[in-house]
Amino acid sequence: MAVRVDLNISLDGFATTTDQTPENPFGADWPRLVAAYAATRTMRERVFKDTSGAGTTGVDEQYAQSYFSNIGAEIMGAAMFGFHAHPNDPDWRGWWGEEPPFRVPVFVLTHKPRPPIEMAGGTTFHFLNTSLADALRQATSAADGKDVRIGGGPTVVRAYLKAGLVDSLHVAIAPILLGRGIRLWDDLRGLEAGYTVKAETAESGTVHLTFQR
Amino acid sequence: MAVRVDLNISLDGFATTTDQTPENPFGADWPRLVAAYAATRTMRERVFKDTSGAGTTGVDEQYAQSYFSNIGAEIMGAAMFGFHAHPNDPDWRGWWGEEPPFRVPVFVLTHKPRPPIEMAGGTTFHFLNTSLADALRQATSAADGKDVRIGGGPTVVRAYLKAGLVDSLHVAIAPILLGRGIRLWDDLRGLEAGYTVKAETAESGTVHLTFQR
Repeated sequence: MAVRVDLNISLDGFATTTDQTPENPFGADWPRLVAAYAATRTMRERVFKDTSGAGTTGVDEQYAQSYFSNIGAEIMGAAMFGFHAHPNDPDWRGWWGEEPPFRVPVFVLTHKPRPPIEMAGGTTFHFLNTSLADALRQATSAADGKDVRIGGGPTVVRAYLKAGLVDSLHVAIAPILLGRGIRLWDDLRGLEAGYTVKAETAESGTVHLTFQR
Repeated sequence: MAVRVDLNISLDGFATTTDQTPENPFGADWPRLVAAYAATRTMRERVFKDTSGAGTTGVDEQYAQSYFSNIGAEIMGAAMFGFHAHPNDPDWRGWWGEEPPFRVPVFVLTHKPRPPIEMAGGTTFHFLNTSLADALRQATSAADGKDVRIGGGPTVVRAYLKAGLVDSLHVAIAPILLGRGIRLWDDLRGLEAGYTVKAETAESGTVHLTFQR
């Protein structure tokens, strides 16, 4: 069992933009940030429900395949679930659609917990007002021997990285400069110690960086 | 004739640290930031005067060779020359030694110009209190058809990048996180437009990123 992170960032280190709106929950730059990943066969099928077999099959696709491999539970921040869009609506089911791509128990960190929501396709959202370590214990238990992903956003990921709780970090760096947003790397001096760091370049220009314990 | 930049940065985008002292002019992290580059055969010979032929000969070495190829003049900021260490000493000749590695006319941007200094090995330092564009005109003229390098530091490089005056940018990204220093990428949103961006991974783990007009 390993604790894993997969994120897309820009060359200047931004993992998300800050121009999110309810209509555009990931911000206007998001499609450019994830373009190479979204073009892969696996992501086309899994996230965009495209069963035609279309999509790229190179280095990006290899990472897309392992993205979904052996994950038993996921942890995410309230913003990634989408609480910020509808903070006072108790019936809001997040912005991942009725059949979210996770297909595992998802633990949402929030100061306003509510009852779990069972979605189609195997995803159940649980809402926790607890510590990082305790959320990880609950997710690990739910994962039943499989890996736990810290899904995001970058603030939650950085907190888990700082706490030394991540075994495997994969960052796909898109060859663009965003100039604004939330940085993944802030305040992580020396993170590389204790990890084996590798870099690989994809046909798309994406640099795949892995930190492996 | 092209205007070129070559810089070493960390994964979190820092091109220099901020703990410089007169005894340690590039700061304590500098050796880690440039380790892979400094290990190449070309850099060992050219910068460290090691004529034994020792040094790496892989991807990093290819970039080290082109680093010195076809440069006719260089522009640098006052801090890179070393003015900050001895601001009031009119006889200070910089911290690059009596035979600096540049071997071309070097134009130092400073608010306190002084007469040129001719060093051994072909380097002459000229001190200019002028605009970026005018300094580039003077350097271009001195380069006599060869390329002009904007040598650094990151603040000067970023200013030239923002002004749209750089034709070729090569960034060697070391697989370490520094967490502090001066960022290369700040406020450069959309820089990739107008460039072809490529990435290549070296045996050392260094990612070589190029922006080519």
